[in-house]
Amino acid sequence: MPTTQPFILNKTNSIANQFLAELRDANIQQDKSRFRQNQERLGGILAYEISKTLDYVEREVQTPLGIAPVNMPVDAPVIGTIMRAGLPFHQGFINFFDRSPSAFVTAFRKVKKSGSFTIQLNHISSPDLTGKTLILCDTMLATGQSIVIVCKELMALYDIKQLHIACIIASTEGIAHVRANLPKAKIWTCAVDDEMTSKAYIVPGLGDAGDLAFGEKA
Amino acid sequence: MPTTQPFILNKTNSIANQFLAELRDANIQQDKSRFRQNQERLGGILAYEISKTLDYVEREVQTPLGIAPVNMPVDAPVIGTIMRAGLPFHQGFINFFDRSPSAFVTAFRKVKKSGSFTIQLNHISSPDLTGKTLILCDTMLATGQSIVIVCKELMALYDIKQLHIACIIASTEGIAHVRANLPKAKIWTCAVDDEMTSKAYIVPGLGDAGDLAFGEKA
Amino acid sequence: MPTTQPFILNKTNSIANQFLAELRDANIQQDKSRFRQNQERLGGILAYEISKTLDYVEREVQTPLGIAPVNMPVDAPVIGTIMRAGLPFHQGFINFFDRSPSAFVTAFRKVKKSGSFTIQLNHISSPDLTGKTLILCDTMLATGQSIVIVCKELMALYDIKQLHIACIIASTEGIAHVRANLPKAKIWTCAVDDEMTSKAYIVPGLGDAGDLAFGEKA
Amino acid sequence: MPTTQPFILNKTNSIANQFLAELRDANIQQDKSRFRQNQERLGGILAYEISKTLDYVEREVQTPLGIAPVNMPVDAPVIGTIMRAGLPFHQGFINFFDRSPSAFVTAFRKVKKSGSFTIQLNHISSPDLTGKTLILCDTMLATGQSIVIVCKELMALYDIKQLHIACIIASTEGIAHVRANLPKAKIWTCAVDDEMTSKAYIVPGLGDAGDLAFGEKA
Repeated sequence: MPTTQPFILNKTNSIANQFLAELRDANIQQDKSRFRQNQERLGGILAYEISKTLDYVEREVQTPLGIAPVNMPVDAPVIGTIMRAGLPFHQGFINFFDRSPSAFVTAFRKVKKSGSFTIQLNHISSPDLTGKTLILCDTMLATGQSIVIVCKELMALYDIKQLHIACIIASTEGIAHVRANLPKAKIWTCAVDDEMTSKAYIVPGLGDAGDLAFGEKA
Repeated sequence: MPTTQPFILNKTNSIANQFLAELRDANIQQDKSRFRQNQERLGGILAYEISKTLDYVEREVQTPLGIAPVNMPVDAPVIGTIMRAGLPFHQGFINFFDRSPSAFVTAFRKVKKSGSFTIQLNHISSPDLTGKTLILCDTMLATGQSIVIVCKELMALYDIKQLHIACIIASTEGIAHVRANLPKAKIWTCAVDDEMTSKAYIVPGLGDAGDLAFGEKA
Repeated sequence: MPTTQPFILNKTNSIANQFLAELRDANIQQDKSRFRQNQERLGGILAYEISKTLDYVEREVQTPLGIAPVNMPVDAPVIGTIMRAGLPFHQGFINFFDRSPSAFVTAFRKVKKSGSFTIQLNHISSPDLTGKTLILCDTMLATGQSIVIVCKELMALYDIKQLHIACIIASTEGIAHVRANLPKAKIWTCAVDDEMTSKAYIVPGLGDAGDLAFGEKA
Repeated sequence: MPTTQPFILNKTNSIANQFLAELRDANIQQDKSRFRQNQERLGGILAYEISKTLDYVEREVQTPLGIAPVNMPVDAPVIGTIMRAGLPFHQGFINFFDRSPSAFVTAFRKVKKSGSFTIQLNHISSPDLTGKTLILCDTMLATGQSIVIVCKELMALYDIKQLHIACIIASTEGIAHVRANLPKAKIWTCAVDDEMTSKAYIVPGLGDAGDLAFGEKA
């Protein structure tokens, strides 16, 4: 089943639009708990959409009244995320892929005096990804630099079978950067925004996803 | 966006197959909590699928960094269920349609000595459904008799705009009964099974959904 | 461990106060989802408190590294509720008592022209309660009439071992009514309010718990 | 209200014993989703217990029918955790402390050829903790070395008002190490085990909490 790439959830109207609107809304964002919950719900929906592209195998299940044929996923994809902003979105994925292992990467923007920044990759805690499908979830795909650095590092360590990059809001520029640098990755996003600020925040976006979920960093 | 009717979730392979397989599995069913959770998850997925058929209107949302256009649902559908078996599935729907009102109907099979049964409709607790979209969730669509009786009663009371019937497993016969008696209703199911026992349990089905979620009735 | 009766959760300050304050708050109540969630959280906390009074038996558990002694509950209490208002509170209980069976009772106020009302008990869907502990959860204990009628009916049907009545807000009068009519029942509430309106709504209370969770009834 | 220190949850029998038994059980552990859920539930219960020691202030809430006095928490504690094992336990805390900011610390054991190890503290993502209450959640308090290093680092950065250390299983040695090095910290645990393996796994314990929740690390 071919999926036009990138997959953009809000091209089709659905209740996901409400979750996304609440995430963006400067008033509703004051409620950290709902901000995290809406990321979880969107994570569940993208998990479902991505799961349609996995491989399945016929099995039989014994019910109390008979035998039912079912097509079961062949493998559990590994669900990765980048600390800290991606955690609630990642939670939405493992709510659905509940048998999957997880990978956590600590990376962050190291901002220079000039305002420009580099991505520092700090720590990787991952299962062996060789021969596995990896779904890397990160709330915002802004410049795409951290996603590309993280994925290239993981691909240098492991021979990953299939790479999916999932986010809630992607910038046009971020998508282009990922496609140029990770041509085999499939991109899944809930919405695409066109602009970025000079500090690489997506516009209109939703602000700083990490701060909104977990409080302003010192 | 036309949806072929009835909508059958497992015609397309997805992670939902795993939830459905676990619901059917006579061993995994011993875990009541997981049984309810899997119904919730399937409820969420069908809520998402049904939401694609609702009406949307353009709105604007103020983010911290700009204005984002969003298509928001025009109305919140009413989420109805039939006590008691449908409750966990209903919970899955209101997890996603979290602004929706709910309707609860108490109906049950009154079994005669002969083994045949009639449906007794006991109590309705519903908002005004006039001009509303109603999604009636019930785990099992077996003979379809109780769904038809409940919907006809609600349609006699209110001029319902659009009726969706959502279930986890439907029998071929139950679908035919609904289509014959509620020709305008849209049917959404996770799977279709062909057979029924003489006591109207779906085969292979999953057994008694109410007992599995909430314990055997006295 | 003797518990002074009735147990009143907010006599001890805890984070539960915040959940209760949000339930009462006329603004925050507009968010149905949070209204239900706060009932769930209080249900979980009362479940934990009530669980301290159950009987336990020593068992051993095999860990990957040794044998651990644990005191396990001897029996799973049955978690009952009265439709529809009590459902989210009941959900909180079964989140913690996840192996417990559930009992559902449909009862409602039949209001006379005079404004007075009688309680009509419509339908009981319950496991055999003989020799069992029953925790009956209902959000509001106002006059206490429906709780007493429901419990007396269940006690007439089954020889219940221990009866707990759990609510979120109880009126002083409701507690007195339960104690007079169900002297052996243990009462657990999150708060006690002194007054009631002429229509038997608790003051300051929180309004109509069923309407706030599920929408105004027609 | 003085709490004997350390607070040990399973000194009082409650339904928490079941969650703890399932976490320890080598069979039930195969279900990653339940393993995470049981940590969440215990996190909620300890959050509730710790919340009893916070400061409260009288407020008034406007209900639809009157004014209700409530004692509200003066401050939201910051909920910290150590990556990756502590995440599900941390989730349980923020389910209850849903307005709290979070702090995440990446630290890990650097094992030498000899089998001995040092703790490497990699990255801190935290709000300003000056004048704040910090609850640091970590599933296992084994040697206590990583907790002490993390807390000392945070205390060097910020003048923390009150420090709580919460875990699911603590070793006797780990508790002693924390008390010796962080004499002002309050310790909260669900159980205390006496032994440790030469590799510093608690016995009987539950095995490797991180691997059980998120899969074996490469």
